[in-house]
Amino acid sequence: MVKIIMHGCNGHMGQVISDIVEKDPDAEIVAGIDIADQGKNSYPVFTDIDACQTEADAIIDFSSAKATDKLLEYSAARQIPVVLCSTGLSEEQLAKVEETSRKVAVLKSANMSLGINTLLKLVQDAARVLAAAGFDMEIVEKHHRLKVDAPSGTALALADSLNEAMDNKYHYVYDRSQKREKRDDKEIGISAVRGGTIVGEHEVIFAGQDEVIEFKHTAYSKAIFGKGAVEAAKFIAGKPAGRYDMSDVIG
Amino acid sequence: MVKIIMHGCNGHMGQVISDIVEKDPDAEIVAGIDIADQGKNSYPVFTDIDACQTEADAIIDFSSAKATDKLLEYSAARQIPVVLCSTGLSEEQLAKVEETSRKVAVLKSANMSLGINTLLKLVQDAARVLAAAGFDMEIVEKHHRLKVDAPSGTALALADSLNEAMDNKYHYVYDRSQKREKRDDKEIGISAVRGGTIVGEHEVIFAGQDEVIEFKHTAYSKAIFGKGAVEAAKFIAGKPAGRYDMSDVIG
Amino acid sequence: MVKIIMHGCNGHMGQVISDIVEKDPDAEIVAGIDIADQGKNSYPVFTDIDACQTEADAIIDFSSAKATDKLLEYSAARQIPVVLCSTGLSEEQLAKVEETSRKVAVLKSANMSLGINTLLKLVQDAARVLAAAGFDMEIVEKHHRLKVDAPSGTALALADSLNEAMDNKYHYVYDRSQKREKRDDKEIGISAVRGGTIVGEHEVIFAGQDEVIEFKHTAYSKAIFGKGAVEAAKFIAGKPAGRYDMSDVIG
Amino acid sequence: MVKIIMHGCNGHMGQVISDIVEKDPDAEIVAGIDIADQGKNSYPVFTDIDACQTEADAIIDFSSAKATDKLLEYSAARQIPVVLCSTGLSEEQLAKVEETSRKVAVLKSANMSLGINTLLKLVQDAARVLAAAGFDMEIVEKHHRLKVDAPSGTALALADSLNEAMDNKYHYVYDRSQKREKRDDKEIGISAVRGGTIVGEHEVIFAGQDEVIEFKHTAYSKAIFGKGAVEAAKFIAGKPAGRYDMSDVIG
Repeated sequence: MVKIIMHGCNGHMGQVISDIVEKDPDAEIVAGIDIADQGKNSYPVFTDIDACQTEADAIIDFSSAKATDKLLEYSAARQIPVVLCSTGLSEEQLAKVEETSRKVAVLKSANMSLGINTLLKLVQDAARVLAAAGFDMEIVEKHHRLKVDAPSGTALALADSLNEAMDNKYHYVYDRSQKREKRDDKEIGISAVRGGTIVGEHEVIFAGQDEVIEFKHTAYSKAIFGKGAVEAAKFIAGKPAGRYDMSDVIG
Repeated sequence: MVKIIMHGCNGHMGQVISDIVEKDPDAEIVAGIDIADQGKNSYPVFTDIDACQTEADAIIDFSSAKATDKLLEYSAARQIPVVLCSTGLSEEQLAKVEETSRKVAVLKSANMSLGINTLLKLVQDAARVLAAAGFDMEIVEKHHRLKVDAPSGTALALADSLNEAMDNKYHYVYDRSQKREKRDDKEIGISAVRGGTIVGEHEVIFAGQDEVIEFKHTAYSKAIFGKGAVEAAKFIAGKPAGRYDMSDVIG
Repeated sequence: MVKIIMHGCNGHMGQVISDIVEKDPDAEIVAGIDIADQGKNSYPVFTDIDACQTEADAIIDFSSAKATDKLLEYSAARQIPVVLCSTGLSEEQLAKVEETSRKVAVLKSANMSLGINTLLKLVQDAARVLAAAGFDMEIVEKHHRLKVDAPSGTALALADSLNEAMDNKYHYVYDRSQKREKRDDKEIGISAVRGGTIVGEHEVIFAGQDEVIEFKHTAYSKAIFGKGAVEAAKFIAGKPAGRYDMSDVIG
Repeated sequence: MVKIIMHGCNGHMGQVISDIVEKDPDAEIVAGIDIADQGKNSYPVFTDIDACQTEADAIIDFSSAKATDKLLEYSAARQIPVVLCSTGLSEEQLAKVEETSRKVAVLKSANMSLGINTLLKLVQDAARVLAAAGFDMEIVEKHHRLKVDAPSGTALALADSLNEAMDNKYHYVYDRSQKREKRDDKEIGISAVRGGTIVGEHEVIFAGQDEVIEFKHTAYSKAIFGKGAVEAAKFIAGKPAGRYDMSDVIG
């Protein structure tokens, strides 16, 4: 039984994870941390992180970048491995993550879902065979109408994964309407579709001579990120100091 | 039996159409016109259009813009309806098409395939219901690595079809990577994927609250444009002067 | 402001609809009916339908077939139009629905989503053009691993819609593994995929000579059925006795 | 420069391969074998296989099962490795293939395309992670209206690949319309869509809790099988006796 401290327990993802853990016989949330205790959780909630001295095997963080610094110090001081899922960290904070990982186990990934992380690995294997054989690589991602950044961080992570397999010789193209020329061999086109409430869809396309191979991931709810975070917590419990990511979790 | 003059008979599409007509009991190519007679056709080929005085019900044109002016004069003079499939006409030539259509029947469309033209009509019907109900509209097209223009003319025709259904209140967006803001309500995003030898794929997406409807057309060969041209020739034979397009053919 | 009685208010869909109506300025739930009042709703709940004498413009029913008989009598007696969404009605009950619709407006559909009902109409239009031109028609549906019936009721409704467009001359095929023969012209193949928690995906395929047109609907949550029910309630309020379905709502 | 004998050179695939090799600087067809010489090839054609004593590095066979026995004897006797692409071999012939492979290199695969063979490998890797994590596996294949067998041999090869990754504990299901029960955990559903002229589409679906991963291969022409055969010929030239398949070619 992995004992988890949920950092940001009253946010949307904190509640999603609470529900997931409740049904998981191998994990338990032993304490929550958030700016206010609304009394809605089955575990004790601390509004001051330092007041939480509950024994635990891992921390899951789905909070805001503002709380990250204190969390990293807490994690290192108490020697409890941490799964970092807050986004929008500054350069300074990313450096601090790196530094903290020399004292305690820290796991951080562009996307927490098991499916996306499996895909990141498989498209890389595919690129080594197919791009080498002359297939062109393209990415199409689809998200809801409110998403402000494009392309998505996950689409860029997929592109980086493809590029890495090809010795980083490719460049990315986001718009083809402004030029009249044929596609470059070393080009990865990335298109972003926005509409409705689409949770997240990512498609990696390998287009060759008379054949096309597509890899597609569809998310139906944000619960997949919570589920991945719980698996990551189970994985990181007991691990030595170091920087980990989801590719370690999926083996 | 519709008697056809094939203008541009020795080009790729001219030969595709010759094959299609050979198997069609209701049509016959009675003469071909091209810059050289290679003796490979079962019908007589004229290298000078004016030398061709064969009786015919329709002309199919899959030639180059350079030959269009003379063709239009010939069509009007001999009063033979024409299906115009050459692309890249200049503004002057488009005006001449308009003028010619006052003397003889002229059919011209952005895309000659039966499937695309059915789609153009159906997505317009869909837009009237779905866009009115708050669904966002997006288009993704995929073509081979050598295509120089993006988005495709057919993607733009689809966008125009959607826009027309909504009183032309929408604008088109080709790139979202340069700004950080949520999607506009009156935006039609158009993405262009390029790779391999993809003949042509067009997808119209209506994304709403928790549901998405997609309309997708996949072309497997350019024969579909030839087949559409033959149907268009059958349709236009005997029609009075005027401007027609494929939406008239599919009724 | 349309006043709604929610029949089956404490079930999953009853609660989904309560949430939807709360945000809708043009509708209001004035009373709920269910076997027990759990005190969780903002409107009064009656455990005995006959005790509910609240004034209302429409009833939405998302209850069980067991409660349908009494509901139909209540609707007719009080002359309040009803949107029937309970499934699994017996032959006797379907006859009673018919009979009731001669006294009061009754709306019943295989699927309540706006998207699916738009699709039902559009694929029929498509069939008239494409099937007539020799395109083959196929349906693939995907649902979660727990769904016991296959193909889905919606897939069958789509097939019926296609078939109706072709004078009901088609038959349905669910399995091709037991015979070695080419596809019949008048065949609609229907395939059922089951896995994970897929909410519902329906794809209608028109496959012709070198081109394929696909129409696909993806549901991301059951909220779309609730939203459709609310639109149906707004539509049916004030309508004369008769049998209605969602195609009337989408106009 | 790999020297190839094309067995079945005047059939559709024999001609496709002749075209491919003509543009390939690393391969050359030095002789063809077929029941009649139509004088249409740039290389000498033998109507009696034993009359062909041209020096060669590999044989590509795209003929009929009737000619396979003699071909195997010829290949062993002359010690020229062979790429066997004829289908519909009898049990006796398959035994003879096995026996021949002890004397000379023999390559035989369910599908010759580079893309499909890459997919066969990747879905196996995916199965090890995803099926182990509780994802359900399903296959959908689409082919033209004239194909008499269902599911396709390639769909079965994909299913076998998935099953093998899971210690062959899964069973295949082709029809769900005849029972009313939820999906079994150890079930691989295989659906066959037929229509138009679809060359071949294979989709492997992993459906989990709130996420779906799909792997899809689309063939646009049979040239991909010819291209794979040529790559296989290059690979097998100079190899010792033994049984090979396309997974060896893609490394």
